[in-house]
Amino acid sequence: MSKKVWLAGLSLAVGMGYVAAAHAQAKPEVLIKQRQAAMTLQGKYFGPLAAMAQGKAPYNKDTVARNAEFLSVLSRMPWDGFAESTKDEKTVKTAALPTIWKDADKFKQAQEHFEHEASKLAQVSKSGDEAAVKAQIGAVGKACGACHGDFREKQQ
Amino acid sequence: MSKKVWLAGLSLAVGMGYVAAAHAQAKPEVLIKQRQAAMTLQGKYFGPLAAMAQGKAPYNKDTVARNAEFLSVLSRMPWDGFAESTKDEKTVKTAALPTIWKDADKFKQAQEHFEHEASKLAQVSKSGDEAAVKAQIGAVGKACGACHGDFREKQQ
Repeated sequence: MSKKVWLAGLSLAVGMGYVAAAHAQAKPEVLIKQRQAAMTLQGKYFGPLAAMAQGKAPYNKDTVARNAEFLSVLSRMPWDGFAESTKDEKTVKTAALPTIWKDADKFKQAQEHFEHEASKLAQVSKSGDEAAVKAQIGAVGKACGACHGDFREKQQ
Repeated sequence: MSKKVWLAGLSLAVGMGYVAAAHAQAKPEVLIKQRQAAMTLQGKYFGPLAAMAQGKAPYNKDTVARNAEFLSVLSRMPWDGFAESTKDEKTVKTAALPTIWKDADKFKQAQEHFEHEASKLAQVSKSGDEAAVKAQIGAVGKACGACHGDFREKQQ
């Protein structure tokens, strides 16, 4: 790679504020947007699976396998965004409840439970056993719901 | 899994609008938010790597390997969000340029190039060859920049 190209890559990173962000602790509003981005994408890839599990969309094993793989990775992404520094941040709208920081151990358990179920779905989706896959989609949905029930403002 | 638990998972999915979204083609504003979420997370995981490549942050092979794995998966997520239906959507602020749809082949090539470089970084990051990893971080940054240069409004 030429030096010019390499410098272009670096300029880009600097221009995007990535390098600055990596230097210092990321700002609370950035952390909130990043954790919300992870949740948004979890929704994108879980939605079609829930529809299939309910028989409201045709079962497609390739979509299941791909979405389950994505979910398994996405399930690991939101948590460092719930830093203590974001607790009192008011510039970004968030449904995060104070219990996240008050009951940090329980929140951690809920994270790990979701990661475990999502990882299991990725495994089960390779088996081709449709009934087992649908049951595991339900388990993932339950893990989402348990965490939202305890740690997220009730949605209208 | 009990039927009650299963139904709770389904209710959750319905409550989140996931199932509805999976039924019909997702709304343009949803697609835009989803593709922006993928870009936000790419930024989250690329930033620290760019800083390391520049020697502005200490090199950490575990962070590199994790971030590279995440980037490799995230590199596949934004593209279906650039559906034709989003071209004229005005309710969500977007920097996407009309060239995305006018020069769809070139946009597709840029996507594939970025996916390729991100996937290669995930491979190289397992090798432990720091110089090779840093060079490949530069190649990923170049792929980001090439696509942004052609298809994204210039950022202030």
